Amino acid sequence: MSPSPIAELTARVRAFAVERDWQQFHTPKNLTMALAGEVGELLAEFQWLTPEQSAAVMSDPELGPRVRAEIGDVMIYLIRLTDTLGIDLIEAANDKLDEASRRYTVDAARGSAAKIAKDHPPAS
Amino acid sequence: MSPSPIAELTARVRAFAVERDWQQFHTPKNLTMALAGEVGELLAEFQWLTPEQSAAVMSDPELGPRVRAEIGDVMIYLIRLTDTLGIDLIEAANDKLDEASRRYTVDAARGSAAKIAKDHPPAS
Amino acid sequence: MSPSPIAELTARVRAFAVERDWQQFHTPKNLTMALAGEVGELLAEFQWLTPEQSAAVMSDPELGPRVRAEIGDVMIYLIRLTDTLGIDLIEAANDKLDEASRRYTVDAARGSAAKIAKDHPPAS
Amino acid sequence: MSPSPIAELTARVRAFAVERDWQQFHTPKNLTMALAGEVGELLAEFQWLTPEQSAAVMSDPELGPRVRAEIGDVMIYLIRLTDTLGIDLIEAANDKLDEASRRYTVDAARGSAAKIAKDHPPAS
Repeated sequence: MSPSPIAELTARVRAFAVERDWQQFHTPKNLTMALAGEVGELLAEFQWLTPEQSAAVMSDPELGPRVRAEIGDVMIYLIRLTDTLGIDLIEAANDKLDEASRRYTVDAARGSAAKIAKDHPPAS
Repeated sequence: MSPSPIAELTARVRAFAVERDWQQFHTPKNLTMALAGEVGELLAEFQWLTPEQSAAVMSDPELGPRVRAEIGDVMIYLIRLTDTLGIDLIEAANDKLDEASRRYTVDAARGSAAKIAKDHPPAS
Repeated sequence: MSPSPIAELTARVRAFAVERDWQQFHTPKNLTMALAGEVGELLAEFQWLTPEQSAAVMSDPELGPRVRAEIGDVMIYLIRLTDTLGIDLIEAANDKLDEASRRYTVDAARGSAAKIAKDHPPAS
Repeated sequence: MSPSPIAELTARVRAFAVERDWQQFHTPKNLTMALAGEVGELLAEFQWLTPEQSAAVMSDPELGPRVRAEIGDVMIYLIRLTDTLGIDLIEAANDKLDEASRRYTVDAARGSAAKIAKDHPPAS
């Protein structure tokens, strides 16, 4: 069986760091900061957009590729962080989704902004 | 062929939102904010740790599960964001890694904190 | 002459840290993470709000005080960070505003979202 | 009595926005994103530094001015945000510090990283 795309990406990001001898900088603490820095760049792309403009951002020939590139950066650091911590990213997300499903039952949560705003976002 | 784990997770997160009628809140702009909020919670777990403590965080019976749960939240919002934008997360990361490989050649970048610090992080 | 309100706040935050022997945790790196964590909590308050709801947030008896408290936290860490670095916060902002004034002349920048979005935000 | 430095800065930032007709973009939601984006740039300056390097950052002829400029940006958006919300930044911080003083008594909190890590940062 061939490795999953996410396993391949993880190995590739690790090799990238090892070849450049960058493991010394890649503590979980530093990688979390780098992840946050990239998310900050993503925020900057969306900050002045209306909700409607943000929904159409991928049709913009200039903004679309920039958003995609920032998301690529975010994923690279998230993958590198989980590899360093020994966490399975997909499993961690699925486990959290299990928990959120118990916490936000369909009936109680339907269409409720107040619910979301008050109790904190769906998956937190 | 069965769907990849990441495709399954994407479908599951989407169903979670649709069942609760939360698509109305899930503009790319709002989801980017939610992603950033979760990354902020992850930062909070690491902020007072030494580099060494951060490297050992998963052995801590209290901090380890918390870090894993926060990473699950980050992934859920990242997946939901890319699903909303129609971006393939793995492809976006691989493309960015191609670009980073051209930009940070192994010889020039090896072990150089200055290089990283100045030119900005490996993958940005 | 009595100290300015900002000088008083700086001294008070410093005393708070010293009394608890927390200077050891307050490296600029750690304080920047703490600042970012608090800004993440502020983002979480706004993430699902429409632009109109966000403009009226202070009239909400529940959200208003929460937003004010988060902003208080952000300011505390920003003050502590600048105190640690020996930076005058007001001067740093004024200098940056001087630079922004030269960069975004009134005529070129008036009412232009594209200008802001493309060249990055007013003050960056 | 002359206005305080912080009142002068607030007025100046407001005039800067008004002259460029940028109030339309300056909802509290958007300004919070812009604030977070600037904090992300600040994180990026510190992410690969050791604790010691971060403590000496202002002596670095290249990094020092960059850190100061990023902090200036953070303050500009924080000031603009509070002006838009009608919040007194200094008062909000002082009130939060009052609360933190009750929560983290000197005796219980002294020198305790665990205390800080567990209960969340001093001022949150």
